Amino acid sequence: MKQRGILIVVSGFSGSGKGSLMKELLKKYADTYALSISATTRNPREGEVDGREYFFKTKEDFEKMIAKEELIEYAKYVENYYGTPRAYVEKQLEDGKDVILEIEIQGALKVKEAFPDTLLLFVTPPNAQELRRRLTGRGTETQEVIESRMTRAVEEAKGMEQYDYLIINDELDSCVYKMHEIIQGEHHRISRNRSFIQSIKEDLECNVKGEK
Amino acid sequence: MKQRGILIVVSGFSGSGKGSLMKELLKKYADTYALSISATTRNPREGEVDGREYFFKTKEDFEKMIAKEELIEYAKYVENYYGTPRAYVEKQLEDGKDVILEIEIQGALKVKEAFPDTLLLFVTPPNAQELRRRLTGRGTETQEVIESRMTRAVEEAKGMEQYDYLIINDELDSCVYKMHEIIQGEHHRISRNRSFIQSIKEDLECNVKGEK
Repeated sequence: MKQRGILIVVSGFSGSGKGSLMKELLKKYADTYALSISATTRNPREGEVDGREYFFKTKEDFEKMIAKEELIEYAKYVENYYGTPRAYVEKQLEDGKDVILEIEIQGALKVKEAFPDTLLLFVTPPNAQELRRRLTGRGTETQEVIESRMTRAVEEAKGMEQYDYLIINDELDSCVYKMHEIIQGEHHRISRNRSFIQSIKEDLECNVKGEK
Repeated sequence: MKQRGILIVVSGFSGSGKGSLMKELLKKYADTYALSISATTRNPREGEVDGREYFFKTKEDFEKMIAKEELIEYAKYVENYYGTPRAYVEKQLEDGKDVILEIEIQGALKVKEAFPDTLLLFVTPPNAQELRRRLTGRGTETQEVIESRMTRAVEEAKGMEQYDYLIINDELDSCVYKMHEIIQGEHHRISRNRSFIQSIKEDLECNVKGEK
């Protein structure tokens, strides 16, 4: 009997390295994990492919999806919608894949409310200096953007305690492994094995009564 | 900063193979785990060494330990006391070792009450037939003993849901690995990383304010 997959939300500060971490996890354990693809109404950027980076939707189509409850969660940023289509996630979970959503804290908590057995992971660099170093090291952000990201990290840190697990991203490879260990360990949670427990209880009773 | 170890209670049906499992875990990851040694008032059997299998105590000494609250939990079976000395466990946890206690459900729940962050693991064979096969395979038990162990398993199964994790012991090596994965994953629980969270929050605030 194949166990149902686990729905996982990964959040973390901009600059925490969660993007590289997830890319590596999906590459290393391709049979185990699936990445949820978001739907959005924003225009595709150069090189982006529909169904790979995002499902690109018109505003009308997106609002139809909302009305039909086809999204696990959605939000609107600067005139554009972003959301998580339910059907794809459900199918992957049924197939026994652990499905990863990369979303921010408000979305994460909404998902947990709708699906209480969602696993919430928070990725953080080991310290603030390292976060600043990574943001600066990108070489693509202005000083103003870096400061606003740091200020936002202070805000986001307030929500850390609402997550289930903390991943301190000090070194990519060991971190990929830690993340895998956490998720695979979770499969053995009592609450995720109710049907096995029920069946072994009945099995034991029958065996003792000599019915088997 | 070395993280404090986790206190782990392992329980399981007689015949679940938890003994071999723990022996192998401790051998394979000797630097990570320590096995708690129980104190008892029963007489040493041939080959048993004080401080290795058990700390052998007189009834008077054991009762003094009870009075001085030097035991995490204790119970009396057939005129003999069995208990878990606190000092050894505390020292190992301080040293960052994950300490394993092999005790039954009543003791497990007492330990969890006293130390709420104790991890409770339950080991079970994949099915009742396999449990019976293992008990019979030992070749040392009478039919009567086997039946009483099976009946006891039915009783013990009722408590399974009070544990945190379930380990289905189908194959020793993969099971040792699973157990290790579960315990190491648990180190990343948010609730076990409160001091890191506090310190990174402060660190981020200071960094943004330019105090660092």
